[in-house]
Amino acid sequence: MTTIAKGLEGVVFTESKLTFINGTEGVLTHLGIPIQEWAEKSTFEELSLALLDGELPTAEELAKFDAALKANRAIPDQLAQLIRDMPKGVHPMQALRTAVSYLGLLDPQAEEITPEARRTISVRMIAQFSTIIAAVNRTQEGQDIVAPRTDLTHAGNFLYMLSGKEPTAEQSRLFDIALVLHADHGMNASTFTAIATSSTLSDMYSCMTSAIGALKGPLHGGANEAVMDMLDEIGRPEKAEAYIIQKLDHKEKIMGVGHRVYKNFDPRSRVLRDYAEHVANKEGKSNYYQILETIEKIIVDRMGAKGIYPNVDFYSGTVYSDLGIKKEYFTPIFALARISGWCASVIEYSQNNRLLRPDAEYTGQTDQHYTDLKDRK
Amino acid sequence: MTTIAKGLEGVVFTESKLTFINGTEGVLTHLGIPIQEWAEKSTFEELSLALLDGELPTAEELAKFDAALKANRAIPDQLAQLIRDMPKGVHPMQALRTAVSYLGLLDPQAEEITPEARRTISVRMIAQFSTIIAAVNRTQEGQDIVAPRTDLTHAGNFLYMLSGKEPTAEQSRLFDIALVLHADHGMNASTFTAIATSSTLSDMYSCMTSAIGALKGPLHGGANEAVMDMLDEIGRPEKAEAYIIQKLDHKEKIMGVGHRVYKNFDPRSRVLRDYAEHVANKEGKSNYYQILETIEKIIVDRMGAKGIYPNVDFYSGTVYSDLGIKKEYFTPIFALARISGWCASVIEYSQNNRLLRPDAEYTGQTDQHYTDLKDRK
Repeated sequence: MTTIAKGLEGVVFTESKLTFINGTEGVLTHLGIPIQEWAEKSTFEELSLALLDGELPTAEELAKFDAALKANRAIPDQLAQLIRDMPKGVHPMQALRTAVSYLGLLDPQAEEITPEARRTISVRMIAQFSTIIAAVNRTQEGQDIVAPRTDLTHAGNFLYMLSGKEPTAEQSRLFDIALVLHADHGMNASTFTAIATSSTLSDMYSCMTSAIGALKGPLHGGANEAVMDMLDEIGRPEKAEAYIIQKLDHKEKIMGVGHRVYKNFDPRSRVLRDYAEHVANKEGKSNYYQILETIEKIIVDRMGAKGIYPNVDFYSGTVYSDLGIKKEYFTPIFALARISGWCASVIEYSQNNRLLRPDAEYTGQTDQHYTDLKDRK
Repeated sequence: MTTIAKGLEGVVFTESKLTFINGTEGVLTHLGIPIQEWAEKSTFEELSLALLDGELPTAEELAKFDAALKANRAIPDQLAQLIRDMPKGVHPMQALRTAVSYLGLLDPQAEEITPEARRTISVRMIAQFSTIIAAVNRTQEGQDIVAPRTDLTHAGNFLYMLSGKEPTAEQSRLFDIALVLHADHGMNASTFTAIATSSTLSDMYSCMTSAIGALKGPLHGGANEAVMDMLDEIGRPEKAEAYIIQKLDHKEKIMGVGHRVYKNFDPRSRVLRDYAEHVANKEGKSNYYQILETIEKIIVDRMGAKGIYPNVDFYSGTVYSDLGIKKEYFTPIFALARISGWCASVIEYSQNNRLLRPDAEYTGQTDQHYTDLKDRK
């Protein structure tokens, strides 16, 4: 009998120098540098560039990259009009997927697939994702699109385009940290789907629309939205314990808890947890914080021995919520960060490309023949 | 050292009852029935339904499915306008990907992912792909969109929408056979990419835009266009032998020859070859036919022992060309056929879903630390 590698778990299909994960020990590094250091000391711009080029940039390289991102923040008028004309109530990820696909129609360089061309297109897409997502959010709420500013960071400018108001330095930095934490995570389903698309030597816009489509699914990008749904369902902190214990007793899935890879604390969740604690100490414990605190304690006590811990989605939703972002936009924001990992992974894979073509075990009928319609019943 | 399954070759990740391929013996079956019988006796409509439902339909089921396809041929006005407004000179697959993504924005059922909903959406998409592709072709050439007719077969209506002229019965049937031959082919890269997307429980429009993106690459859907480029480059039959022998001597890739799976004649190529021979006997040998005949003989003589034979792309381009289809539209026509396999495979996989998350072997640096920008050089 053939061994079936369900979900491709444990199957190694390529090499990568970008991201290392040790799920048992709760370790995540990019270019060998722990995620905690990236979160504390770096920026989304710098990490994006480091992933694209495979090394820490010099000050000059970073300044050049930052300038290129800023210069590419604006989106073409036709795309802005497409976004304005989208029906109200659309799923933001359907909107993002369509907008990015349309951007491919407008880009004369779209068909170029050399590493250099893929990198140039990546820089534009990293910049433009931000503007597209903010524009979709604004127009879906009946507001005008806010044009990007070039005197703000990538994170700060996004928050500005979303609300029309300049964020505080602390808000910008917090959002920047969230983007850093989500920028890359090895061979997750959306990065893998982008690579599968690129493996036929397809173009960057095709790779990115594929990745958006994969991220959109509730088993991947939708988890932090589901955590917020759970928190809203629980409602009051004093109800949290009974809610979670009942879920555990009935062996029901608890959102934001457990991870395919991590069998220990997700290091990204620790960074966000520390932030949440910091805010709670300064401003008092919010309802959300108290509920999360209660759930975390129960999960670690009762499930920790089984390798089930809160994951990054457990905390990220409340961070976004604190920043005034609606939960329907949590997954697009995941895309806003992961675009860097997607682009870097496609560029890396394409330099040692091999068409992806796995097999399925055939379990259907054999030795059949076509019968005439009139002879069937 | 970890074994790396490059290209996932030989990795079995799921079960399927749809399609069986034995590349060594040149066998391809759908539901256990040889592709030759499907091509000879069935239609694209019937094979599509059989793949979606996993069994040969009754006459009543087929009539109902056929009526549903016909009822769904028209596309929404907003989509027709989007297609008309596309810049001239766009890659038809960028256009198709964008149009299908946009269709998802307009479909109130888009977010439903039950097998029943996925099937309902599949029927609409199978019908609408045809209209979208014809509309893109027409508008890109500055012509009006031709509205679908409901008194023609799926294949016949497509040719009608493309040219504005009703095709002959023989043309319709020939195109129908080409669609049958391309409807499904196991875990090829585009079907696999559709499944990777659906594995996060994403929606059908995301799955299909991913598949279009993967098919677009020259290593997958672009091969028959590349064969036509080669035939045009060779130009005259008497030049074919020298051209191919030179390629072989320099170990250069010859388009339409060899296949990852088939190490024998691709059974689909035999069906198309028989057709080409039939036309040649009736109408005389065209230039293309004579060139293909010459190349095939050399390849089989010199490379057959190594398992390298002409594949399906070797002949399909000339069939499409005979039908008046421009080579830029060969890949969209591949999508027009493969949509049935994509939908059926996603529906099958989603009933026993497992998130796809393979691994990469980490070969990068370890134990690094973030250094301040000013300390780098």
